[in-house]
Amino acid sequence: CAMGRAVGLVGLLVGLFLVPAVLVSTSLRHGAPRSDPEPEAAEWELASGAVSEDSLWPLPQWLRTSSRQLQLAPGRFQLVHGAGSSAGPACGLLQDAFRRYYGYMFGQSHRRKPSRRPLGDRAEPELLQLQVVIESGDPGCHRYPHLESSEAYHLTVSEPVAVLKADEVWGALRGLETFSQLVHEDDYGSFLVNESEIDDFPRFAHRGILLDTSRHYLPVKSILTTLDAMAFNKFNVFHWHIVDDQSFPYQSISFPELSNKGAYSYNHIYTPADVHLVIEYARLRGIRVIPEFDTPGHTESWGKGQKDLLTPCYSGGQPTGSFGPVNPILNTTYDFMSKFFKEISSVFPDAYIHLGGDEVDFSCWKSNPEVKEFMRQQGFSIDYAKLESYYIQKILDIVSFYNKRQVVWQEVFDNKAQLKPDTVVQVWKNNLYALELSSVTGAGLTAVLSAPWYLDYISYGQDWKKYYSIEPLNFPGSEKQKKLLIGGEACLWGEFVDATNLTPRLWPRASAVGERLWSSRNVTNLKDAYTRLTNHRCRML
Amino acid sequence: CAMGRAVGLVGLLVGLFLVPAVLVSTSLRHGAPRSDPEPEAAEWELASGAVSEDSLWPLPQWLRTSSRQLQLAPGRFQLVHGAGSSAGPACGLLQDAFRRYYGYMFGQSHRRKPSRRPLGDRAEPELLQLQVVIESGDPGCHRYPHLESSEAYHLTVSEPVAVLKADEVWGALRGLETFSQLVHEDDYGSFLVNESEIDDFPRFAHRGILLDTSRHYLPVKSILTTLDAMAFNKFNVFHWHIVDDQSFPYQSISFPELSNKGAYSYNHIYTPADVHLVIEYARLRGIRVIPEFDTPGHTESWGKGQKDLLTPCYSGGQPTGSFGPVNPILNTTYDFMSKFFKEISSVFPDAYIHLGGDEVDFSCWKSNPEVKEFMRQQGFSIDYAKLESYYIQKILDIVSFYNKRQVVWQEVFDNKAQLKPDTVVQVWKNNLYALELSSVTGAGLTAVLSAPWYLDYISYGQDWKKYYSIEPLNFPGSEKQKKLLIGGEACLWGEFVDATNLTPRLWPRASAVGERLWSSRNVTNLKDAYTRLTNHRCRML
Repeated sequence: CAMGRAVGLVGLLVGLFLVPAVLVSTSLRHGAPRSDPEPEAAEWELASGAVSEDSLWPLPQWLRTSSRQLQLAPGRFQLVHGAGSSAGPACGLLQDAFRRYYGYMFGQSHRRKPSRRPLGDRAEPELLQLQVVIESGDPGCHRYPHLESSEAYHLTVSEPVAVLKADEVWGALRGLETFSQLVHEDDYGSFLVNESEIDDFPRFAHRGILLDTSRHYLPVKSILTTLDAMAFNKFNVFHWHIVDDQSFPYQSISFPELSNKGAYSYNHIYTPADVHLVIEYARLRGIRVIPEFDTPGHTESWGKGQKDLLTPCYSGGQPTGSFGPVNPILNTTYDFMSKFFKEISSVFPDAYIHLGGDEVDFSCWKSNPEVKEFMRQQGFSIDYAKLESYYIQKILDIVSFYNKRQVVWQEVFDNKAQLKPDTVVQVWKNNLYALELSSVTGAGLTAVLSAPWYLDYISYGQDWKKYYSIEPLNFPGSEKQKKLLIGGEACLWGEFVDATNLTPRLWPRASAVGERLWSSRNVTNLKDAYTRLTNHRCRML
Repeated sequence: CAMGRAVGLVGLLVGLFLVPAVLVSTSLRHGAPRSDPEPEAAEWELASGAVSEDSLWPLPQWLRTSSRQLQLAPGRFQLVHGAGSSAGPACGLLQDAFRRYYGYMFGQSHRRKPSRRPLGDRAEPELLQLQVVIESGDPGCHRYPHLESSEAYHLTVSEPVAVLKADEVWGALRGLETFSQLVHEDDYGSFLVNESEIDDFPRFAHRGILLDTSRHYLPVKSILTTLDAMAFNKFNVFHWHIVDDQSFPYQSISFPELSNKGAYSYNHIYTPADVHLVIEYARLRGIRVIPEFDTPGHTESWGKGQKDLLTPCYSGGQPTGSFGPVNPILNTTYDFMSKFFKEISSVFPDAYIHLGGDEVDFSCWKSNPEVKEFMRQQGFSIDYAKLESYYIQKILDIVSFYNKRQVVWQEVFDNKAQLKPDTVVQVWKNNLYALELSSVTGAGLTAVLSAPWYLDYISYGQDWKKYYSIEPLNFPGSEKQKKLLIGGEACLWGEFVDATNLTPRLWPRASAVGERLWSSRNVTNLKDAYTRLTNHRCRML
């Protein structure tokens, strides 16, 4: 197990979980029912004599490595701004990244044998610096990453200095991750890197992880840990499914009763300071935060702190006391939503807001006499999908007014809402998702794929291979349509996930999705992926 | 979430995993494929207004509680040896348990508001002591628990003192766990207990957890954490599947090369001190440690450090260089096994050793010309099960010589080895396990059931209900046969388990097995179990 990263994921979190370095396994296993296929022969095995490229994840678009090795002395090696860079010491984002990656590469500095032998005795020449050069006039140090940000970088490692060039800081972050993955320790604890050249850029611009903080509350620290792991895998979108039926942990400034009454407890909320911390921590890692405030369904928790927001359900001509989706027939609903999304638009800097729109249950609307009457007046007949689209349309208009673009779940498209051309449709239904991608992009809309990557569904064995083997562009459509698929998201819904199992359930399974969305289409060899992913997991630990 | 236990499982281990107190969930969930049944409506919900018996796990055999509540003042409450007890301050096991359960009940002592109001203002009377009385002349403070140990106890909680009576310290440990589960905090942070009377004893004498430290090494701390959790669930056997094909982490005194060459690394071993620590930590919790040294199959790792122990495999008349099961035809094999099991018999104090004997692959034996010749000489014809039994018989004799009883996997019985009447046969094959139980007990042998409780097999949702709903005695047989089923084990094989996911994968799923093996046969209500298990999980966290 490469020991390069003493700081990181589980190793950092869990003093007790002394990480087993070498992992399993061959041969029969006791207990496989005879009727089942034999379980996978091996999980994560140590790749002995690993060289640099055995450990890169996700695999860069283009790389050339030499067998010539350079040595790094932790006490001397520097990450610096290179000559001609538009970024300098005032670029807090890069300064922070330099320190972070220094720690990943060399650990907590307490080397057992600091500079054991004078360098003159070494056969290997020394690498003294990594020079980072941002080439764009505006490096973006104080901006937020966005869909069109450049994450491309070019890395040259040769004696005596390595050079990392990128248009913007976002590419530099990706290149720093790659450089840190190239550095490894030999048997004697020396830090080495092979002379290499790498040219790299993402295949898809939108590479996301969905966390659900409503079914179970996740402590802010768990979210930050996930953001760290996302950066290790070059993910760049944190889709924050922050509220849902079960709880409303978002503490609204305009409507504090929403979390006061809708959160599991006063303790299980995200304060404005929490939200800001998550956004900034993500920004420093080149990760966008797209919040989802899903309506009109999935809103039971909203109703507790906002009177008359939800539709009263009826039975036998009487209100039952329970509530359905957001009430779409009241002006007060839109007054509330307008004020609410004004706040959201200002709190979350990303250009996109996810508006949900999935799984609307019509039964409560159908039971309500006032909704029925409204349907009649509007000429919707008994087509409740039209009522849903009526509602969604108004929400889309509100959010557009605040200059935000929209992400929606596929039902909003399926129900024929009028969507702006820059709307992103997230495809999640596993049934015939290729045809859905074809329809969405055929209508000229951008799409994000999640259907095959619902990581909350678990099964015995190495399911990462299933996620890895998905080819997102394998749907019927023109070249123009293929360009409209801007990426994908691995979704970890929270019914059976909380802080006690989040990390081992998400990683390294999500890493498979990370490589699929970053690396070239032809990177599909499972055996090679297994070797690299094994080392990558070890490094993440 | 009951806050009574500030010390414990995940909460203690993982500073970062700020445990979410209140958990999920109702309504539709985004992402359930249309063709699937709806996922479970809810996972662990907070039982509001919980009373004592809502939180007991496993449920005692008999209990009566009153609505009258007594208050406990952490600064005054004492766990003491009662009058007439055969145990006193010299009983280190109980002294240790008193301190441990004090911590579980009252946390790390830093109460936010220590003795906020004088007791006179309280409506509730105070409980001042729990007096523990061991009634047997030999309390067992310095002994090891064994199959015939008494774990029965009687607990009376009434003003001003509670009394816990048990024959031996093992029952006192179980009663302390129950008492600690009765203590709860009210909304104001006061510690309360309902006046109660409990009479309790286990339904089955053997209630085990199998951990596999060969497929993945588990740090000693992970094992100790598991032992803590086992005590919370009244498990009393740690079945330590310590070595297997993949690695040999047991550091033998007589044969140090076994782990020097067969462990994953020099770091991934259990030293004699480690083994001793595990055994003592288990003893203090009333848990037996049964080590498994599985032969003749599952021994690949043994071959690395012990020359000529394994059978050389042949192909086309030539040795292939690979090895099969233990070589049963050499005297040196039995010399080695005799010396090895002499050590094991002395290192592990339990009366039983698990000898494995499962899944022997005959293909290598069949390929080896010397084995063939031996078969001919012995008159085994081509029945390799006879060769296996020949080998096992010798191992059984060796271990009997060192005065140890044996546990074996079911194949040893199936292959008709001559087993002593006190041999325990562990039934693990999921196919028709009821018939196997019938056969084993019909032959007058004792049995332990594991087949339906392979917890390494995971699936989406609340699979604890599946484990909970198993009725172990539901097999054809006489009353006498039923008595021969002495218990069961939940097995967590290690192909996909290491320190990063052990705890959330094992708990609270194994708790379902714990209650099934402890509580009365008629304790089967899933809704009631759900409420209690939710509170129990919270307390374990």
